[in-house]
Amino acid sequence: MLYIAFDELTATLTAALEKAGFDPSRAARLADVFARNSLEGVYSHGVNRFPRFLGEVQKGIVRLDTQPETVASLGGMEVWDGHFGPGPLIAEQAMARAVALAGEHGVACVSVRCTNHWLRPGRYGLAAAEAGMAALLFTNTAGNMPAWGAVDARLGNNPIVLAIPRSKGHIVVDMAMSQFAYGKLEVAALSGSKLPIPGGFDESGALTDDPAAILASRRILPTGYWKGAAMSLALDCMGAALSLGRTVSVIRKDPLPERGLTQVFVAFNFRALVDAAQADRLLDEELEDLLGSTPAPGGAPVRYPGQNRESIIHENLTRGVPINEQTWEKVLAAL
Amino acid sequence: MLYIAFDELTATLTAALEKAGFDPSRAARLADVFARNSLEGVYSHGVNRFPRFLGEVQKGIVRLDTQPETVASLGGMEVWDGHFGPGPLIAEQAMARAVALAGEHGVACVSVRCTNHWLRPGRYGLAAAEAGMAALLFTNTAGNMPAWGAVDARLGNNPIVLAIPRSKGHIVVDMAMSQFAYGKLEVAALSGSKLPIPGGFDESGALTDDPAAILASRRILPTGYWKGAAMSLALDCMGAALSLGRTVSVIRKDPLPERGLTQVFVAFNFRALVDAAQADRLLDEELEDLLGSTPAPGGAPVRYPGQNRESIIHENLTRGVPINEQTWEKVLAAL
Repeated sequence: MLYIAFDELTATLTAALEKAGFDPSRAARLADVFARNSLEGVYSHGVNRFPRFLGEVQKGIVRLDTQPETVASLGGMEVWDGHFGPGPLIAEQAMARAVALAGEHGVACVSVRCTNHWLRPGRYGLAAAEAGMAALLFTNTAGNMPAWGAVDARLGNNPIVLAIPRSKGHIVVDMAMSQFAYGKLEVAALSGSKLPIPGGFDESGALTDDPAAILASRRILPTGYWKGAAMSLALDCMGAALSLGRTVSVIRKDPLPERGLTQVFVAFNFRALVDAAQADRLLDEELEDLLGSTPAPGGAPVRYPGQNRESIIHENLTRGVPINEQTWEKVLAAL
Repeated sequence: MLYIAFDELTATLTAALEKAGFDPSRAARLADVFARNSLEGVYSHGVNRFPRFLGEVQKGIVRLDTQPETVASLGGMEVWDGHFGPGPLIAEQAMARAVALAGEHGVACVSVRCTNHWLRPGRYGLAAAEAGMAALLFTNTAGNMPAWGAVDARLGNNPIVLAIPRSKGHIVVDMAMSQFAYGKLEVAALSGSKLPIPGGFDESGALTDDPAAILASRRILPTGYWKGAAMSLALDCMGAALSLGRTVSVIRKDPLPERGLTQVFVAFNFRALVDAAQADRLLDEELEDLLGSTPAPGGAPVRYPGQNRESIIHENLTRGVPINEQTWEKVLAAL
């Protein structure tokens, strides 16, 4: 593992993106997304995905030559077409637009069709929280998870984010509708370890905690079994309805790999309606109560989503951001 | 089991509610909620809860003498205080208001503090879908589920609903953040059967599919383990922030049983922005693709949430609505 200073990391990624054809402003914004996701400890959706992203640009899966377009609007609601542009840039812009619209309308929604993978969605929820708003956002994905009772992967793992601003640290949940990511299964299989709980089915159709058996069957488990499967479908359908976006089945049947996704960004300007300090106090008391839970013997430490973010950032700023050596070689080769 | 004609059921419940002090209009609206939830097959949140509701009215947990009040508004967003009135009536009114506001503003949100249990939330999502809008709504509850890594129940199971209108049948997901409801565990324990998957922890802290062991420990499992626990907390905190509402910890510390809940209703008027027929076609194709999944040998039949609603309604209209005999005796005793 290499430890790269955050500024060096950002500058290097910016240079590689400019080389790939992005203008300096978009290159810098995109580099910040990759670098900061790693800085905040979400390595799977940070620099690790950079070489893949460059490949997608080269193959025309992610298009450089388009800008998102507003195709319809009414009050606090807008429908955008992303025209297959870079997902993180479109997501950042759509979330910012929802925040701006909510400033005027109290609540706002920007739904986006034909965008691309947004890397780590928690980033956009955090951006809304930094602007003092609560946010709810979700995406669909390629088909990567079977429906409940099925063997072939016709559902997406369709991540959802809920973000609530708080003076002492925002609360941000960022979760996919599968119990484990494929990346997690691969890491566990390589190290020969079992999953802590069942994560899918083996070839015989039995639930298993053996990551290799799940990778062989490609039958990953929806989070909460039938519940995550139902939620995945509903998020997909809601996004498609709100934007006339591509559903998971359309994305799956596209001869090109995962592209043209559907995303929805909702912002709630609640601090314009209620006292922010009072809301903060309510949240502080709730988290304090939760953290005061009686711990289960041998259980995981009780914490709230977002709790460790600041300490990870601090560590990675001090020591450098951990980057896989092979990944870094690929980044440098793109300069 | 008794089978009561739907009209007789509604008339009987209306009479009992008038006897309990509700004016005829509110009594009829409330009776419709209880009767229709049972009609649509959601027995656990229909007439089964009627005797308990009357008890809550008697004890002043649910107040007859208040009306919900709008305490703040901006564009498409309103904050209401329910003043501890009847949850189903407030929920119906709040969802209808969100739909009306979304008519003008594209998207709208009504957040409600100090309301009460809404029975079956899918009803309100369906109402929005009937009005041609997509909806997202959620509530908190009393503390009934431990945080991940904890033994004492400091989280609510905080149900969430997503509803998407469709000409050939609305898509409605209505799910709590626990894997199983306590009622479900009790039914399984009484019949001596195991759960199909682990549903909680036993006294020693081991995951178990034995409902009696879970009822003894009171450690029910969040759906998706840590994921449902995180989502539960985020829904609670978001509701509290949006309305200055009571969090699960405040509700838990109230000497009166579960009351003064926090709920959020969001409506999306997408048909004002996109072509409804085209959205319908996208949803039809997505569901057709899903239902064409390769079934797992011995697995559950693949279906979409909301798929069986019409056939259950038809059966219960034809044969009568199934009502537990003891419950019916209690209803008649309240006349």
